[in-house]
Order: sequence, then structure tokens, then C-alpha cells
Amino acid sequence: MSHQQQLTAYVHALISELVKNGVAHAVISPGSRSTPISLLLAEEEDIQLHVHVDERSAAFFALGIAKASKKPTVLVCTSGTAAANYFPAIVEAKISRIPLVVLTADRPHELRDVGAPQAIDQLDLYGKHVKWFMEMATPDSSPGMIRYAKTVGARAIAMAKQHPSGPVHVNIPLREPLIPDLDNLEYYRLEEQKKTSIQIQTGEFILSDSYFQDLVSTLNKKEDRKGIIICGEINNEEFFAKVIKLAGQTGFPIIADPLSQLRSKSADKEIIIDTYDTFLRNEKVKSLLKPDVIIRFGSMPVSKPLTIFLRENEQAKQIVVDGGSGYRDPNQLTTEMVYCEEGYFCEKLTSVISHCSLNHYLNKWIEINELTKKELMQTAEIQEISEAKLFHSLGELIPNDAVLFVGNSMPIRDLDTFFHKQNKEVTIVANRGANGIDGTISTALGVGVIKQPLFLIVGDLTFFHDLNGLILSQLYQLPITVLLINNNGGGIFSFLPQVELPRHFELLFGTPLDIDFKHAVEMYKGEYELIKSWQDLQMLFQKSNFTAGLRVWELQTNRERNLLEHRQMTNRIQKVLDQLV
Amino acid sequence: MSHQQQLTAYVHALISELVKNGVAHAVISPGSRSTPISLLLAEEEDIQLHVHVDERSAAFFALGIAKASKKPTVLVCTSGTAAANYFPAIVEAKISRIPLVVLTADRPHELRDVGAPQAIDQLDLYGKHVKWFMEMATPDSSPGMIRYAKTVGARAIAMAKQHPSGPVHVNIPLREPLIPDLDNLEYYRLEEQKKTSIQIQTGEFILSDSYFQDLVSTLNKKEDRKGIIICGEINNEEFFAKVIKLAGQTGFPIIADPLSQLRSKSADKEIIIDTYDTFLRNEKVKSLLKPDVIIRFGSMPVSKPLTIFLRENEQAKQIVVDGGSGYRDPNQLTTEMVYCEEGYFCEKLTSVISHCSLNHYLNKWIEINELTKKELMQTAEIQEISEAKLFHSLGELIPNDAVLFVGNSMPIRDLDTFFHKQNKEVTIVANRGANGIDGTISTALGVGVIKQPLFLIVGDLTFFHDLNGLILSQLYQLPITVLLINNNGGGIFSFLPQVELPRHFELLFGTPLDIDFKHAVEMYKGEYELIKSWQDLQMLFQKSNFTAGLRVWELQTNRERNLLEHRQMTNRIQKVLDQLV
Repeated sequence: MSHQQQLTAYVHALISELVKNGVAHAVISPGSRSTPISLLLAEEEDIQLHVHVDERSAAFFALGIAKASKKPTVLVCTSGTAAANYFPAIVEAKISRIPLVVLTADRPHELRDVGAPQAIDQLDLYGKHVKWFMEMATPDSSPGMIRYAKTVGARAIAMAKQHPSGPVHVNIPLREPLIPDLDNLEYYRLEEQKKTSIQIQTGEFILSDSYFQDLVSTLNKKEDRKGIIICGEINNEEFFAKVIKLAGQTGFPIIADPLSQLRSKSADKEIIIDTYDTFLRNEKVKSLLKPDVIIRFGSMPVSKPLTIFLRENEQAKQIVVDGGSGYRDPNQLTTEMVYCEEGYFCEKLTSVISHCSLNHYLNKWIEINELTKKELMQTAEIQEISEAKLFHSLGELIPNDAVLFVGNSMPIRDLDTFFHKQNKEVTIVANRGANGIDGTISTALGVGVIKQPLFLIVGDLTFFHDLNGLILSQLYQLPITVLLINNNGGGIFSFLPQVELPRHFELLFGTPLDIDFKHAVEMYKGEYELIKSWQDLQMLFQKSNFTAGLRVWELQTNRERNLLEHRQMTNRIQKVLDQLV
Repeated sequence: MSHQQQLTAYVHALISELVKNGVAHAVISPGSRSTPISLLLAEEEDIQLHVHVDERSAAFFALGIAKASKKPTVLVCTSGTAAANYFPAIVEAKISRIPLVVLTADRPHELRDVGAPQAIDQLDLYGKHVKWFMEMATPDSSPGMIRYAKTVGARAIAMAKQHPSGPVHVNIPLREPLIPDLDNLEYYRLEEQKKTSIQIQTGEFILSDSYFQDLVSTLNKKEDRKGIIICGEINNEEFFAKVIKLAGQTGFPIIADPLSQLRSKSADKEIIIDTYDTFLRNEKVKSLLKPDVIIRFGSMPVSKPLTIFLRENEQAKQIVVDGGSGYRDPNQLTTEMVYCEEGYFCEKLTSVISHCSLNHYLNKWIEINELTKKELMQTAEIQEISEAKLFHSLGELIPNDAVLFVGNSMPIRDLDTFFHKQNKEVTIVANRGANGIDGTISTALGVGVIKQPLFLIVGDLTFFHDLNGLILSQLYQLPITVLLINNNGGGIFSFLPQVELPRHFELLFGTPLDIDFKHAVEMYKGEYELIKSWQDLQMLFQKSNFTAGLRVWELQTNRERNLLEHRQMTNRIQKVLDQLV
């Protein structure tokens, strides 16, 4: 077989196996060395292709697609710094457990570390930030090597999906000439059809029945079980109904982080607690709500007051359930780390634990939650453009079935405080693995490939950091509505001790950009609106159908006034909560 | 001592030592964990601070400063994906041998791998792409630990500078509270003054006199020494005069890559050959110019015809001289790899080799170079906007003492072909370590911090990739004039075999962005001009003084017409060269 035939058979085998194992999207950045991979992917009918020149943004876009589809997404780039640009998204994917299959083309061995153009050391390029790395052999179409290429494809998918899901990296050295044999593709397809695909089946962590019996006997020791359930981000849809059943059976309130998705379609579910970020700042309340047992699922919640509450309740039995066998407990308060599939854990515990008869403790949580929410409702009275009110209004403004991507730094915290249980179905998404402000627009647009209508709420620094991501909306006619909170700089630092050091504050932390983002939106042929009143914003929401294009609605706020507004509200509510008995 | 005092003394000791060892610039990205590093750097009078929210761009900016100043530049970021964004520039710095000192703030040990916010595994984050990694101890002000902090500072600088220069990474775990004791800074300064700084002296590779005697006896074997000298990029100003002397003594022409800087102030130096990228495509010429000896300095040249010429002359003794002890020879044609300081090598060889009396071979190179240049001059006759003519005109247009940053992909190749020896002093800079299209604007602006007037010539994809970098011009009033060649996509692929596959060409390789860059320039408050004629361009060069602000002058070209123009010119000149005897 010729070089071209060997190249084609080998790369085709790898790609076919990826497709057979369920890959539906590939995000490609243009390059020469990666030519056979890109061209053969383009020939696959079952793969939707996205091409993006900025690899940093491309990788976050793939992350978004994988996040929303819950399936491994393929990334392809050429050799050199192209691959290094993937790094931030890969780091995020590893921590937030999102499956990515990164295929990097590489120079063959004889062109490495000899000053060849676009040749960098790509072996273990992402270090410990991928779950699995494979340096492939150079193309070879002997039956054993075709089987090897297929096995690499199947293993890449299996490793990316296996709990905890995450990114894997396959490095593929390719020699010139790089053009595959597209004219005879039918032949390679037929050859491939003769072969079986490789299936890799991975089980889940399941604990024994006796474990659950023991757990129940511990929990039943006290008559009035003072227990709470905490749900962070968890990428498992079947889990929701199961945890609500568990809560009902045990009488444990569910502290629902915005990323738990439990604030969606749950306005009437009293057991779901959603204003704890406000009321757990109050000492009186915290003493009233001291728990004996805490069962926590998913990633660490956003709320700092909640984290402090956990730290202050070292006396409680703190159980962390993690089907992905990580160790998500920054305070090391866990008394029992449970590696068990979360849905199974809920079902099993529900089936063996007795129904809670005394609900004093639960009722206290519900009462305080309702009281706090009533107070927070006053946010609606704010007349001027305000960050707090924006987050408070979102539930009303955003259409049913929407997906809302939330920027890090202040937006996710404000969302936690001001966005409560809805009867609408609203999926909340954020990059909370490493909490970076990078790649936010691109990740959101990736989510938008799978789910629409898409809304993104971000601050100006986060928006700026990933401005290049907006081109994906233009190139792929991906609808997105951006609520841009422009306080001209890093709003979060006004809430940190740094603000007391005026000497270098604006230079190092405030960092105003002084940008008129209207120009950026025009560059990508989007619609731009500067929101001057709440009526403006309501009108825009009413008249838009969100089915096409890029919309950026900018709300200009002021960092100092925002700090003051937050402080005044917190102080007011604290006074109300102080009255509790 | 309190936590705050220990923190301050420790971080201050590290930073003071960096300053004492010659650091003059620091590029900081805002963040909370890095607060003590940033604030204490801001208090250093001898450090110029640059703050930039996009860490990818910030790192390339630091790379540019270090490239132009030839001194280690400090980078500071907070923990998390911020640090991962530095990766592309670090990879480039490693290969192109640019000294960077990367200081990443990190969570302390107890917050690692436990789901804490913004905590990623930063140990060996950049793998083999930094020369040296040090995970520091947490702050401690005991005398031994202060000495340790100072030693880390001194070693970081020494390692970054030592040949081959490159990036180093110091990871600094910091516990809250993070605010340093700025009120008593005078105390820490006085303490620091009592201590001596640590000096690390590194020598150069120098070969013995007997080596040079042996080399000369090999070179003298033939009567008519047919030798050539090739100079790629080399970051050593004293080298230029020495290599020209060596050429004069040996009678070897110098093949001068554009990044060798030997095309500057050398229009009258016949021995410098600058049109080889054109004439080495000709078989006849190549047979006339077969060398016996090749002595090569610096990085691999840009020209592909030159690389092929080297490969076709395996009979020649190919000597590669590298003071940085790398292995820059993708074709593995080296018969002698010489690890010796390049200037010393030239001086020593010049002093021991006899003066060349027969110059037939040299004269042939000069004759062909002149003939080719005469033919290339016809580029000046092109009336329409043309990429070839733009590069041909640069020497005339650009003011004396300018620095010209050249984008990768097509611009650096066109510059090689069409930009010849000047009497002006024009410094040519590019990112030729990994030849990426990323970070180009930022690196150029970093160079512009040190040297002005600054010109950048780039294609539209490269310009787009690093658009965020433009804000540095706005924030720091850094003057830059961008010559933007907009052929709406990846022009280089039209020159590669991919162009023969029309089915996916535009999707995977052409990748048109369809962007009106005028908006981007307006966003950064720059001046934008669409160049419609050569008169326009000349007028703009005449009336500008290049002392302030951002200017983007766009030339819209056509990928297909450009390919045709290049091919026609090559064919015409090949016919002329075929006539040679």
C-alpha cells in the first residue's frame, strides 16, 4: 500500500471508531499537519463539524457542546502552539468532569527537537490535566495497526466518559504528504464495515446493602433527625427526582445551589431552600439551624456563607457522596466520603430509612427561607439600573425552557443570592471547575449548539477576555442573547479586603478597560442595545423571539454603588433575621 | 511575627532579589490570590508595571518585552486557569530562547485537590516547556527562609538567562489573609538592604585553540574553498560585526535570513545574499552553487528553498554553531555540531584561517543575487493592491530605526522573498520558535515598549487571533502601526496541496471570517484606513509621525490572485535564471 493509502486507512479507522462510539461533534482549528484528520472528519455524515481559528476559544466551545450534550466532543488542531491554546479549557474540563477527546497532529519523530517549524514537544503536553494520554504510532495499514487505531479510538471515548468524565489527549504523528485518498473513500468504508467496533463497558460505584443498613442505624440514633441535603452541580438528570424523594422521606431540606438545577420547575417545592446565601450570614439563624447530619452531592456550592456554615458545624456527621470518587471538600470536614453513584445512593437510602415524622427542624428552614425571600423581593423596587435587580428579575424575564449561562466572579454569586426557584424550566450553566473568567462566551455558545434559547450573563472583563468567541455566533448562526453588566472593571475586588488599599487599587484590581462594546457587537454583525431603564429591558425581552443572531444588551453599573447596594440590603435583612426566635 | 509580617517579608525578599538581578518589567494579570506579589511589585520603583486582564495576551506581551530588551520579564497571575492561559507564550519562549520569569500564585497545600475554588494542579504546570520549576514553601520570615526566597529569585533569573535562555516557573502558595503590610514597607526595605544579594555567574561554551587549528586544516584541503555562511535569527548584537569579518576573511557569502538582522544597514555589502529564497528554486543555479562547506548560525532560516538546498548538498561539510547547545537541524545534515559562543567562533576562526584569494565561487553567488534582485524589482510595477508589492515596498516606506514585527504563515515568507538589504536600520522581529499565529499583536506591542516606531505586518487570521492584544496600545498609549493584509482567510493554504481538494477547502482551510476590522479598531480608539492605492499608502507613511496611538491600515487582497501573482513571478524569474551559464 502507498503512503497515502496507509495514511487514509489508519486515520479513517481511528475516526470511524470515534463515531461508532457516539461522537457527534468535532471542533476543528485550521492547520496543515492535521489535514488528514480534518478531511476525514469532514467526510463523516454523523459528525457535525465546527471550524474556528482561535484554538483557545475552540476548546471552550467544544467544552460547552460536551457539557450540554453529555457526550465526548472531539477537538482537532495542528502541531505547535495551537495545541497549547487548548490548555485552559482542558484544565477546566478535567476539574468540571467534562468529556473531551483532543486529537493533536504532530510532526513525526525525526522532526522533533531539531528546530523544525511548528514542532513543539507534545508528549504529555497537558500533564496531569488530562485523564489519559496516548502517543500514537505513525500511520500503518497492517491489520494489527488498524486494530490498534480502532482500539485507541474506543479507549479514548471510554476514558473520557468513565466517571469522573474528563479530557483525554491523543497525539498523532503524521508524515508528509498529508492528503488522504478521498477518491477511494468508499473502499475504506467497506473495509471498516467488515470489522466489528470495540465496545468498552464501564460500571458505576455501588455500595452494598449492609452499608446502607449501617448508615440508617447511625442516622436513626436521634429522635429528631436534624439533617440537611446539599446539592451542588451534578451532571446527572435522573438524580433530581431521586434526591427529592430522599428529602421527602428523611424530612431533610435540600440546599439547592443554582447549578444543581433544582431551582428549576420547583417554585412550589417548599423543601428546596434557595435563599441560604443570604440567611446563613446571620449568627442567630445559624444557631437555630445547626444540623446533626449533612449529606452533600455534586460539586462545592457557590455560596461562601454556606461554606462557612459547614465549617462551623464540625460536630455534624458530614457525608459527601461522589460517584466520580474525587475529594470535593476544601474544608476537609467530611466524616464519611462515599464513592457511590448518587442516584443509587438516594434510591437505596430512601428505601431503607423510616419516614420522618417530626418536621420541626425542616419547618424552621422553610420558614426562614420564606421570610428571607420576602425581604429579598424588595430588590424589585430598585429603580435605577442595578446588578442585584437584574438577577432578581431574570426569572420573570427569561422564557421557559431557556438555558442561562452565567459568568464567574460576581454574576454567579449574584445569581446565587437573587435568582430563586422558578416554575419555568431554566437550565443554569457555568464553568465552575476552576472558576476562570476565560472562555465564557465560547463555552456558552457551545451549550447553545445543543440547547436554545441561550442567554449569557457576564461582566465586562469576562466578556472582553473571550471576545473572539463571538465569531462563532456569526459563523454558525448560533443565537445568543448576552446580558452584559458593564461596571468598567473587576467588580468582585470591591468586595475583597484589597479595596482598603486605595494606592494601587484601580491599577491592579479595578482595571477599567474603557471600552465601548458596541463596536465589538457591530464587528460580529450583532444587535446592540444600551439598557437605560427596566422598561427598556422588559420591552426587549417581550419583542425578541431569540431564534437568530447575536444580541448584546448592555447594562452600565457602578462598582461603588453596587457594593453599597449589596451592603445595605444585607444589613437590612440581617436586622429582620435578628428578630427571629 | 504576624502572618501579615511574615507574608510581607518573604514575598518582598523574593521580589527585591528579582529587581537586584535586573528585572525591569512586570506584566500582571488581576487576581486575588496574587495580591501580595502584585502589590509589592507595584511598590518597586525600578519595575515598570503593565496590567492586562487576558493572560494569554499578557504572556505574549511579556515575551515581546523580553525579546526586545534581552532581559528576563516577570509575569504574575492568580491561581487557576489564569496560569494555563500563559502556556502558548511559554512554549514559544522556550523554543525561541526568550527569558521569562513566571510567578503564579497558588492555593496552599490544604486547598489542593479538594474542590476549592480556582484551585488547579499547578505543580509542573508547564511540563518540559519551562527550563526550571520551583514550588516555593509557604511564607515564613525566619532568616533561613528569607535567604531561601532570595535564592529562588536569583536562581530564577540566572536560569532564565543562561544559554539557551528561556522561561522559568515559580509557584507560590499563599494563605489568606493576602494583604501585605504596606504601611511598614520602609522596615522591610531596610532589612533587605542589610542583606547582600545573590550573584550567579554563568560562563559561555568556548572551544579550545586546537579545535580551530583542526577545523582550518580541514577547510584548507581544497584550493578553491566553496563555502557559505548561513545566518538565522540570533539574539546577539556583537555577533554581526564578527560574522561579517569571518565572511570577508574566508570569502564565504552570508545567506542572511530576514531575522538575522543582516539585511539592515547593509545595502552596499555585496557579500550578504538576500534573494536566495527565489534563486534557490532553480535547478541550474543550485548546480552552479554547490558548496563544500556550510557554516550555519542561529535558528533555522525561514526559506524552504534554502532548506531543500541544504538537503540536496549532503556531500558538503555542514557545521552548525550553537552557543545554546540545542539541535536546530530538521534534516539532520549536520556533520559537525559545535557548541561554542557564536561570536567567539567567528573571531577565532577569522584569526586562524588564511585570507581567501580565489573568489570565483563567491562572485557567482553575488552575480546571481544581483540578477535575481533586478528581476524582483519588477514587483514595483504592480499597480493593484498586492501582497508581493507591499513587502517589496516596505524598505522604502518604513522610517529609519524602525522595528518591524512580522506575522507568521505568509507574511514572514513574503518578507523573506521581497524585503531586501537596506541602508536603513530596520529591526525585524517575529515569533519563530513554534511559528504560531497566536499572540502576534501582543508580542509586537511588548517589543514596542522597548523600541519605537513599531510596525506590524500581519494577515487577517493572525490579527483576529490576538485582537485582545490591541487594548495594550490603548491602555499604555503604545504607538503601533499595523499593516493588515486581509485576504479573508488562510492565504498560505492556497500554496499547499490542500488547494487541490475543493470539496472542503473553504470550510477547513480557507476559513473566511467576513469581518469588518474597522469596528475592532474603533473599539480601541485607533485610526483605521482602508488602503485603496499605493499613493494612499505612501501618503499615510509621509504624513504620520508614528509617535502615538494605534493605526491600522488595511490592504484587501485576494487569495487566488495572490497565488497567481506569486506563480507568475517565480516562473518569469526561473526562465531568466535558466539562461545562466
